[in-house]
This record gives sequence, structure tokens and C-alpha cells, in this order.
Amino acid sequence: MYDVVIIGGGAAGLTAAIYACRKALKTLVISPEYGGQTNLTSHIENYPGFIVSTGWDLMAKFKEHAEHFGAETRTGKVITVEKKGEKQFHIHFDDGSKEDCKAVILCHGKLPRPLNIPGEKEFLGRGLSTCATCDAPLYKNKAVAVIGGGNAALEAVEELQHVGAKVTLVHRRDQFRADEITVKKVKALEGVTFILNHAPVAIKGDKYVTCFEIEDVNTKQKQELKLDGVFSEIGHVADSTMVKDLCKLNPAGEVIVDDAGNTSCPGIFAAGDITPVKYKQTVIAAGEGAKAALECHRWLTGGKATGEYSK
Amino acid sequence: MYDVVIIGGGAAGLTAAIYACRKALKTLVISPEYGGQTNLTSHIENYPGFIVSTGWDLMAKFKEHAEHFGAETRTGKVITVEKKGEKQFHIHFDDGSKEDCKAVILCHGKLPRPLNIPGEKEFLGRGLSTCATCDAPLYKNKAVAVIGGGNAALEAVEELQHVGAKVTLVHRRDQFRADEITVKKVKALEGVTFILNHAPVAIKGDKYVTCFEIEDVNTKQKQELKLDGVFSEIGHVADSTMVKDLCKLNPAGEVIVDDAGNTSCPGIFAAGDITPVKYKQTVIAAGEGAKAALECHRWLTGGKATGEYSK
Repeated sequence: MYDVVIIGGGAAGLTAAIYACRKALKTLVISPEYGGQTNLTSHIENYPGFIVSTGWDLMAKFKEHAEHFGAETRTGKVITVEKKGEKQFHIHFDDGSKEDCKAVILCHGKLPRPLNIPGEKEFLGRGLSTCATCDAPLYKNKAVAVIGGGNAALEAVEELQHVGAKVTLVHRRDQFRADEITVKKVKALEGVTFILNHAPVAIKGDKYVTCFEIEDVNTKQKQELKLDGVFSEIGHVADSTMVKDLCKLNPAGEVIVDDAGNTSCPGIFAAGDITPVKYKQTVIAAGEGAKAALECHRWLTGGKATGEYSK
Repeated sequence: MYDVVIIGGGAAGLTAAIYACRKALKTLVISPEYGGQTNLTSHIENYPGFIVSTGWDLMAKFKEHAEHFGAETRTGKVITVEKKGEKQFHIHFDDGSKEDCKAVILCHGKLPRPLNIPGEKEFLGRGLSTCATCDAPLYKNKAVAVIGGGNAALEAVEELQHVGAKVTLVHRRDQFRADEITVKKVKALEGVTFILNHAPVAIKGDKYVTCFEIEDVNTKQKQELKLDGVFSEIGHVADSTMVKDLCKLNPAGEVIVDDAGNTSCPGIFAAGDITPVKYKQTVIAAGEGAKAALECHRWLTGGKATGEYSK
């Protein structure tokens, strides 16, 4: 039986694993793949200590770090977390197998809402980005499109224009969901082109993106935009069905935590993008993962828990 | 005029600087010295991505990272933050000079409460530690003393015993302030020696600590403990006098923040150990610094703020 099973192998989960192992907890990390959202960033320049890294390389270092201190890893997909008793959980996999543990840390993050168009998988991380904060600085003097009409999309436009990119915003509706103040500000920016009532059709290129095909949602007329990058900012989706009967979720499906990573279910902790934590950044997820692991250790060893849910 | 002045040059402040600069904010970091609490750790093994580093080297990398993106730094001590108007603050230094800025991020951390005994300054980071979570794994099969009687001290004893250190707890009173459950647990540990009613007198050694001199508080009789390490766990002190008239503080003198780093004063943000954040760890402080800088950028650019204080 593991002391703790960590579900999710991104920045939050791997940091939680480092901390859990250093507290001598027998630790298993489960994830369909390792590296999480950080993997999708071609150049990560804002993880302190590494001026430039690829997201992939940085996450490989995190995984090596966790394994160095004894974390075990298993590639797999969890479908249900079952509470069997005090400090006893069963983790059920999609292949019918299970693992037993005393505590669980949920770090399975969110996924960018898919565009579901040709070229999406091929060019993700090679001109197609889902994180303007991460990648905008790479597009100085380059032509990019941003897809979406919410705050994230408009903020991405602003961020890209600010670093000197030539930006086209593509949105499938004729109005924005973003805050009015943000819309006003972005409309006032120089050199931004707005293409409304158009939906993404395909992303094309060679090694990197060179073209973005879109379609008028009314006339169905297609056009191709020649450019260097596409930012998909149509939101993220949280999938917390594995704990829906155990943990309190918010309407967005995020697992609600207190300021130490406790969920509403004693023994289940959560960290990173699967929680309502502010801002999606590698270093933030890592910090939250450390908190959750330290709180988990405190709970497992009978210490007084520190967070709101445990008062 | 700077867009943002960051007060404090530890993990939180330098990460805030990286994020502020990447948002193209004109950024100044002010600190009496750079590296913060992390500098005091001889081997840091739990900052994800660096399996082993010295605290000093890691913090030098953080500083280089912030400067790489354009952060300016000034060595100095801030005595007062003055609000002059909407998006206008004056930062006053102990030498009478000042800097002007639109926003402030407080990251000046806490300081371990000093022992005020000979050898303290000399051996800090060389056998004298103020962070058991950081340094315990270095003391397997070694003899150490822990000073203190609160939760932090008893948890340090537990942590050190757990990694295989031979631990002596030295406490100046005959009773513990720690939670009863923790006291019970630590008293049940094998191989831990308790020396009560004794106060620290001096820390001695060559290059590293070899001896800890203590004194019976009643009889004043002195004795020397031969050992390899001393953990001072007598608490930390927060000094927030520079903003005491602007920001809501808690009884411990910590600056109260919401979950995005907003303080009660619009335009002043805070992150890291100067706030009530759970657990004092480099990666946690870094994550909080990133949140505060992103929230600061959002506020400066007129975006809707996300935190509780700004609703």
C-alpha cells in the first residue's frame, strides 16, 4: 500500500512527489503522460532558475528529480477514486486494475479545450500555442492569429501586440464574451485585425505553422491566413469525475481547496490547475504541489492540519 | 518612475521580478541583500529541476534570471511605503532617498528569530540551520541539537529522527508550547534526548559546527554538547512596519493577502513569507511571487482584478 498516490504528472504532481518522497512517504505518481501543460510550451523562459528551457526538457528534469528521491511512476488513466475507510483509498484504472493508498493528491490539471480541426495535434508546440503568457515573447515582428472571444483571447491579443507581433483575432461570433474594459482596450490597439463570425478550419505548415484556414460561419466561404503562429484561447476543461462523489467541486468542475491544498474530503488533497488557483503557470503549480504534499504528510502523521477545511 | 517596485530579493521577489519584466513592466527590486532565506540552506534538494544546489547558487540563478529580463536591482533598506495618489507610491529608504512607482510588491519575507549568542552569524549555513525541512536529510547518522519548544521545534526533532539523526532537544522552559499530540508523538520517539530548562550559550566549531554550549537556566551551570548540527527553531519574525498604515496585517505582523496576492491597499501586492502563506519553501514563495506579479500587471493595465480584495 502506498502512503500517497499522486494523480497527474505535470509540474504540480511531480513537485508534490519530490516533497512527499523527501518526507519518506511511499509515493506513486499516476499519469497518462508526464509533463502536463508545460510540455506544450516550446520555450519556457519564466520558470525561475532556468532562463531558457523547452517545456519538455524542464518537465523531464522534474520527473528525474522526483524519481531520484524514490517516487514510483505508473502510466495510466484513473477513472475513480474510492474511499474505503480511514486513510484507505482505492484508485481504479480504466483497464480494471487498482492501487491502494492512504492519501491522494489530485494534480491532473486541465486540458485546453480542443479545436478539433486538422493540424491541431501535429502543430501543437510548433507554432500552435495554448499559452500566450508563455510564448508571446517568441513572436516579435511575426504574424499570429488568436482564436477566441473571451478574456483569455483578448488578453493574448494584447500581450502579443505588446511584444511587437502582428495580430489577427479570429472569433466565431460577432460579439465578445470578454469584459467590456478589456474589449475596449484591445479595440484601441494599433495594428490588430479582427475577423469575426469566422471559425477555425485547419492549421497547416511544414515543420512549423505557416497557414491558418478559417471559414465564414454564415456564408461558409473559406480563407487562408499566412502566419507564423496560432494561439488557441478558447478555454480549458477540468475533468474531476473521478472524485465527483468525494470532493466538493465548483461549477467549472475544479476541485475546491483551502489555502493548504485540503479538499472537502479528508485524505484527498489537490494542487495546480485542477483547483481554482489563480494563473496557470509552471512555477505556481509547482508551489501549490509542494503545499499539498506537505499538508498531506502532516495529515498522514497525525499532525494538526493547517488549512480551512481541516480547522 | 518605475511601474513596480518589488521590496525583497528572495525567491518570491526575484520571481515576481521575472514575471513583471516579462510583462514589460519597468521593474526595480530593492533588498538589503539578495537570496533571502534560501541563501541559508547549505544544500537545497527540493527546488524542482535542480536535484542538488546550494541555496546561494540557486538564488544567484534567480537574480541573473530577473536581470536577464531587465529587472533593475538596488541594495538598500526600505523604511516606509507612502501612498501619494492613484497608482503613485513613494518608497523611502533609511538613507533619506526615495524611489517613485505605480505599484508595490512586498516580498521582504521573515527572518528567523535570532538566538543572539556567539557563533550564530559565523556558523549559519555551516552546521547551524533554521530549516529542518530543507536540511534534515543531510544529518543521517549525525548528532544534532534542536532549539525550541513550539511546533516547529518538535516537528524538526521528528523530521531529524526520521532521517536517522541522533537528536537532542534543548528548550529553555520545562514545558512545551507545541500541540499536545505533537509532544506525545515526539516523546515516544526512540533515541531522542530532552534537555529542558536550558538556554543556548554559544555555537562553536572550526569550519563547521562541532559543539553547542548550553546553560541551566536555574543553576547557571554550563555544559557542552559535541555534535554536527544545530537547528534553531524558535520562530520567525515579520517586520511590516513599512506598510503598517496602508495594509491590513494579522497579529503576527504578516501582510494579509487574497488568493492572488492583493493586499487591502489597491496597488500594493504581497507574496511569500511576509504573508500568511502555508509552509516556508523556496518553490512556494516563487509561485506566490509569480501570482502577485501577474495580478499587479493586471491591475496596472486596468484589467479586472481576480482576487478577493479586488472583487
